[in-house]
Amino acid sequence: MTEYTATVTVRLKRGVLDPEAETTQRALERLGFDLDDLRSADRFEIDLDAASAEEAADRADEMAERLLANPTIHDYEVAVEDR
Amino acid sequence: MTEYTATVTVRLKRGVLDPEAETTQRALERLGFDLDDLRSADRFEIDLDAASAEEAADRADEMAERLLANPTIHDYEVAVEDR
Repeated sequence: MTEYTATVTVRLKRGVLDPEAETTQRALERLGFDLDDLRSADRFEIDLDAASAEEAADRADEMAERLLANPTIHDYEVAVEDR
Repeated sequence: MTEYTATVTVRLKRGVLDPEAETTQRALERLGFDLDDLRSADRFEIDLDAASAEEAADRADEMAERLLANPTIHDYEVAVEDR
C-alpha cells in the first residue's frame, strides 16, 4: 500500500448560474481590479492508502460520484499524487 | 496583452478547524470509504489580460491579499497559465 493524495476539483457546469462567483468578481472590480471572468470551484484533498495510483484515482472518482459532486450541476476532475 | 487564467487556491492554515471538511470526511466514511484525511480548499479561476505571466500572477496575488483570502486563517497559492 502506498500513501496518495487525491485532489478532486468540483466545478459548476457551464451555464449553471454562480451568484457567489459573480459577487466576488464585482467586488474585485469595485476594488479597481480589471478581470474578464471569475469562476469558483471546490477542491477536496483526500489522503488515502491504495495499492496503486489507479486504485486511488478510482476511489476518489467514486467519492466524487457518490458525495462530493452533484452530477446534475457539477463537473469534476481527479488528480492523484504520491504523498 | 496576452490572455491568462490565474488560479488562486485558498486553504485554511494548518491548525485552523475545518468543520465542513470533518463532516465531509465522516460522511464518506459512513458510506464505506477508507481515507486518512480530507482537506477542503476554495479555488478561484480568474481570466485576465496582462503584459506577462508575471504581471498576471502579481495581480492575482493582490486580489488574494485584498479579498479572496483572509491572512489570519488562510494560506493561498497562485498559478498562471495561458488561456
